[in-house]
Amino acid sequence: MLKLGVVGYGYWGPNVVRNFSSQPDCRVVAICDKNPHAVALALNRHPAVHATSNADEVMSSPEIDAVAVVTPVSTHYQLARKALENGKHVFVEKPFTATSAQAEELIELADRKNLQIMVDHTFLFNGAVRKIKELIDGGTLGSLYYYDSTRVNLGLFQHDVNVIWDLAPHDLSIMDHLIGLEPELVVATGGAHLNGLADMAYVTLHFPKNIIAHLNLNWLSPVKVRTTLVGGERKMLVWNDLEPSEKVKVYDKGVQVTNNHDESRQRLKELVESKAFEVGAEQTIRDLLVSYRSGDMWAPQVDHTEALQLEARYFLDCVTSREKPVNDGRAGLRVVRMLEAADQSLKRRREIAYASFR
Amino acid sequence: MLKLGVVGYGYWGPNVVRNFSSQPDCRVVAICDKNPHAVALALNRHPAVHATSNADEVMSSPEIDAVAVVTPVSTHYQLARKALENGKHVFVEKPFTATSAQAEELIELADRKNLQIMVDHTFLFNGAVRKIKELIDGGTLGSLYYYDSTRVNLGLFQHDVNVIWDLAPHDLSIMDHLIGLEPELVVATGGAHLNGLADMAYVTLHFPKNIIAHLNLNWLSPVKVRTTLVGGERKMLVWNDLEPSEKVKVYDKGVQVTNNHDESRQRLKELVESKAFEVGAEQTIRDLLVSYRSGDMWAPQVDHTEALQLEARYFLDCVTSREKPVNDGRAGLRVVRMLEAADQSLKRRREIAYASFR
Amino acid sequence: MLKLGVVGYGYWGPNVVRNFSSQPDCRVVAICDKNPHAVALALNRHPAVHATSNADEVMSSPEIDAVAVVTPVSTHYQLARKALENGKHVFVEKPFTATSAQAEELIELADRKNLQIMVDHTFLFNGAVRKIKELIDGGTLGSLYYYDSTRVNLGLFQHDVNVIWDLAPHDLSIMDHLIGLEPELVVATGGAHLNGLADMAYVTLHFPKNIIAHLNLNWLSPVKVRTTLVGGERKMLVWNDLEPSEKVKVYDKGVQVTNNHDESRQRLKELVESKAFEVGAEQTIRDLLVSYRSGDMWAPQVDHTEALQLEARYFLDCVTSREKPVNDGRAGLRVVRMLEAADQSLKRRREIAYASFR
Amino acid sequence: MLKLGVVGYGYWGPNVVRNFSSQPDCRVVAICDKNPHAVALALNRHPAVHATSNADEVMSSPEIDAVAVVTPVSTHYQLARKALENGKHVFVEKPFTATSAQAEELIELADRKNLQIMVDHTFLFNGAVRKIKELIDGGTLGSLYYYDSTRVNLGLFQHDVNVIWDLAPHDLSIMDHLIGLEPELVVATGGAHLNGLADMAYVTLHFPKNIIAHLNLNWLSPVKVRTTLVGGERKMLVWNDLEPSEKVKVYDKGVQVTNNHDESRQRLKELVESKAFEVGAEQTIRDLLVSYRSGDMWAPQVDHTEALQLEARYFLDCVTSREKPVNDGRAGLRVVRMLEAADQSLKRRREIAYASFR
Repeated sequence: MLKLGVVGYGYWGPNVVRNFSSQPDCRVVAICDKNPHAVALALNRHPAVHATSNADEVMSSPEIDAVAVVTPVSTHYQLARKALENGKHVFVEKPFTATSAQAEELIELADRKNLQIMVDHTFLFNGAVRKIKELIDGGTLGSLYYYDSTRVNLGLFQHDVNVIWDLAPHDLSIMDHLIGLEPELVVATGGAHLNGLADMAYVTLHFPKNIIAHLNLNWLSPVKVRTTLVGGERKMLVWNDLEPSEKVKVYDKGVQVTNNHDESRQRLKELVESKAFEVGAEQTIRDLLVSYRSGDMWAPQVDHTEALQLEARYFLDCVTSREKPVNDGRAGLRVVRMLEAADQSLKRRREIAYASFR
Repeated sequence: MLKLGVVGYGYWGPNVVRNFSSQPDCRVVAICDKNPHAVALALNRHPAVHATSNADEVMSSPEIDAVAVVTPVSTHYQLARKALENGKHVFVEKPFTATSAQAEELIELADRKNLQIMVDHTFLFNGAVRKIKELIDGGTLGSLYYYDSTRVNLGLFQHDVNVIWDLAPHDLSIMDHLIGLEPELVVATGGAHLNGLADMAYVTLHFPKNIIAHLNLNWLSPVKVRTTLVGGERKMLVWNDLEPSEKVKVYDKGVQVTNNHDESRQRLKELVESKAFEVGAEQTIRDLLVSYRSGDMWAPQVDHTEALQLEARYFLDCVTSREKPVNDGRAGLRVVRMLEAADQSLKRRREIAYASFR
Repeated sequence: MLKLGVVGYGYWGPNVVRNFSSQPDCRVVAICDKNPHAVALALNRHPAVHATSNADEVMSSPEIDAVAVVTPVSTHYQLARKALENGKHVFVEKPFTATSAQAEELIELADRKNLQIMVDHTFLFNGAVRKIKELIDGGTLGSLYYYDSTRVNLGLFQHDVNVIWDLAPHDLSIMDHLIGLEPELVVATGGAHLNGLADMAYVTLHFPKNIIAHLNLNWLSPVKVRTTLVGGERKMLVWNDLEPSEKVKVYDKGVQVTNNHDESRQRLKELVESKAFEVGAEQTIRDLLVSYRSGDMWAPQVDHTEALQLEARYFLDCVTSREKPVNDGRAGLRVVRMLEAADQSLKRRREIAYASFR
Repeated sequence: MLKLGVVGYGYWGPNVVRNFSSQPDCRVVAICDKNPHAVALALNRHPAVHATSNADEVMSSPEIDAVAVVTPVSTHYQLARKALENGKHVFVEKPFTATSAQAEELIELADRKNLQIMVDHTFLFNGAVRKIKELIDGGTLGSLYYYDSTRVNLGLFQHDVNVIWDLAPHDLSIMDHLIGLEPELVVATGGAHLNGLADMAYVTLHFPKNIIAHLNLNWLSPVKVRTTLVGGERKMLVWNDLEPSEKVKVYDKGVQVTNNHDESRQRLKELVESKAFEVGAEQTIRDLLVSYRSGDMWAPQVDHTEALQLEARYFLDCVTSREKPVNDGRAGLRVVRMLEAADQSLKRRREIAYASFR
């Protein structure tokens, strides 16, 4: 029976409490929030839990085995450090920390103390993402070409972070999980229209093996969009997270270029140059060089189990087995590094080598 | 009665012939294509027209008043120059030319000879674009925040140009028309997976007045998307060109930040710093600072007249009135400059000052 | 402070408890369910409430002012009667009763005892329905032509009632509210493929003033549809209850026939007869006789307050004010009569005069 | 080389001319229309064709092998009869004739003269319908449960026929083809709001083997819908003809009831009766009796070849081979009988035995 303390009972905290509580081998024994209204709410819902506005009570309690940190990012480092120092495992909201230096320090501390850190990259446990992971790892998509996500809506403005820190962690953690590589270069552009913080941003990440990722993030969109395209050599897919029933659609579509296309292109070039505007001939040659494949579409059934429930289960299992979770501190660190690189690129108006943050 | 010669009878040429032919004060008298099959097809459809594979016959014919150049971009300059030198008005496919230097030379030549150049920025005559222009110019949207377009599909690969030169001219000409300003900076990222040319690209353009534009261009998408978001201070709209009936949706949505937000932010910062993780309080303050407006949606009726028909009409009127068209050589030049800047940025992996192409 | 007892704590009961509990002038004091698991669940969630499996404890408690009956329809009559006999107001699930005779008896009983009956026609309090009601009553739609609803999905099979009694009460109560008239004729067709009860049904209702309603009800549909078209002389609307944001779309569309169309039709008839197959002429004449109007579409903002919350509030207000609710026993009776007529029509394979159930 | 005369050059005639002309072994030699404008148009487009306003010239021409009758339905019988009497094969628009008696006479005449009649049930050659036919015949769907079509839009009003004769022939011919059975009973309801003819109608057809079909037909809908659900024991599908790319979606969804459900139902009934409102128990039993299957969705690639082109090809092949086409006069007659039955039901306000028209 793992005894959990939850620090932060705002928007997401209640979900953490509910999902950990429903595990048979876990008990939420303390809930903490600075806001007395949140404390009162927690007490009302969970009369048996110790509710407090003093985080130290949670950190120092000898009864508590693990702490969930569900507060704004600026406070993650301090709270997680205190928990680790007190010998407690840590489940921490994403993004892991406000800087990569903080993340590195926490990882080192946890390793030294033999404690677990799990960063709440909830989407890794989402049925659609697990299905996509399966399709990639099983070779269905073939070599990856790109990951292209549009994640836009009206608000929510956060006053301490820009739109990248608010919306990108979802996609960055998913990409990190699906692609399994660290990016080489990050380019971010964006605009700030209201309060000085970027409220829209476009982030491109170049990965090894010629994989490219792009995020369209926007707090000023009249419509909510959560659509991701993943293109591979053999198949392509569209994941629409707002679609109630067919979230993942796999398309048997693709493009093939003839093998010796260097030769073909040379020949084409000569033809084009010699005949100026011979449209028809050019078309014919193109058709010889490139062929399109357009077959069936298939929407696999996707598991609808609440992601956070599976993640809570996984946290408990990792604590018991002492195995490193996939979403450990290092995964959290990689996401923070990408966020830092994007921020830098936005500020300095140029591309940023991801390695400069390693 | 304007007598028109059409050079290039591949994919788009037949549309040009059909739409100019249907004007009462225009006659298509010659059609030219290097491809003998295209010539035969033209003859079959238009027995009364002079069909030839020799462009010089069109250029030198004293009977012809204007020439439509509907060939690949690499040939535009040479053909348009010949036409102008022979005293003929020119209607030329987009993008105008392969380089801005070529465009500048043609503009100068036309001005000297007192001839018209119209670049076929067809979308300016599309009902949805005209409606959006009306909404912007009439102040319905308020100050513009952004123009964000997704223009993706499977193929068509062109072997002489990359995806930017293939797909971006549509959006660049529309933006140029709607925003009425030249960009200050251009940033492009992208990837090439098949034949060495970029088959996906992301282009950000920074305009004066804090307006930002972004294009998502992709030849490797399993689905076809033609969706543009335009955000303004007072209203926002979504233009989905694939929607059969409600192409433009105007949302009475927006965000307002309180006037003295510098002061408010300072106070917020102090609060956040002093109280660490007081989620609830922060939320309360945020709600005071930012307010969302979410009202009705409205899909105005959009004219479905074929855009090219209106454009053909406009060309004839401009030739008669000697007024400069909005889509004159200078408009064409601006689009070519943006394409060049995007190409440069892609190649040199950094942002490019648009002014460097002026 | 009204004290409420809730009988039935299965699928819907918890929602009734939650929404009445949140009213400041109401307290749920007892919850009853035959199923001991349901009783245990109620106790767990509401430790202060008297939870029991004996309905008589609720009915006879002098402390209780009103009873909510949230059980299968076959038990409504008996439970509601007991509650009324014990001097308690009644809030009862739809459909009101299993027969119109039962409904009439309960109405008479409540009237005699000066007690309120409210039938839980929840959809009357739905934001979209309230908006549609407003559009009809305010004359925006003009004279009504039709109400056409598709309400299909996979399951839920109920073993005691057919698909009409399961799905139609929603639409019948909405229609009753919007149209404000009782139907003259009811025709139902349908099929039973699995367990002898109709699992798909099509119901047409003819109302006075030439208004027609139609319901497509299906438990065997692979997709879930909740779409209603309402056509009026001046405007038409589509209500898609599954659409997250634009639930109601009002179309400025219509058809007009020329005034003296008797004359026109006579002339047309002569023309058609005399000229046999003169397609073109006929088309011309038709265009003179009929004109289509196709203007803007408009999606008004719809209130998203939970319908049951508004309805609970309304129940408390009606108890206090002693005003008859719109969804009183008589409204419930009208819906039951329509259900009986549909059942009869299905069985006897012919249309049924609604009046035969009055 | 078959020589074809086309009578009727209004909306559909030009498509017939174009598709027959493009067959290598067919030549359209004459086009006839009463309307001189249509004749002029035909001449303009096809200078080599004999264009006339006198149908007798087509019927009596010894050069002509077959006649396409593309005129309003009221004229089909007379024109087709004349063609057959003159020894010509007939391709005739749907619906075949205005009455079943006319259809029977034409069939008898064609049989006697050993000539072909093909009724233009174009949709049988549509890629989506051919795919659905394949899925049914191959056993993928299992035993059919239902065919449910919604075919609504604004207009087109026809002055000589009601909405059933205008819109239903599409679905009736498709159903006839897919189901392969004649209906036993037809029930139609509907309303007339403008000019006395039904402008909305709902038609139910009961087929043997417990198959049910339903058509929702409406000329007064603000939106255009062309959606058909086909439910089978093993799989269900949705055909949306307005969807550009995924027209047919096959769902691995279904419902199973336990084998000995008579016994189960008896037991359930006792339980329900004995325990009054024991919701939970009932739910448990229901879950034992009924199980839902909800698997993947699959959108097979659908051939996009123009249906009329395939049909023209098929006509020519049938004339050569002397094989009866699937869409022969008898298929046309079956559709006319269903239309007559629906008309009768609408008029007499009761269900109509289809056999009464045999």
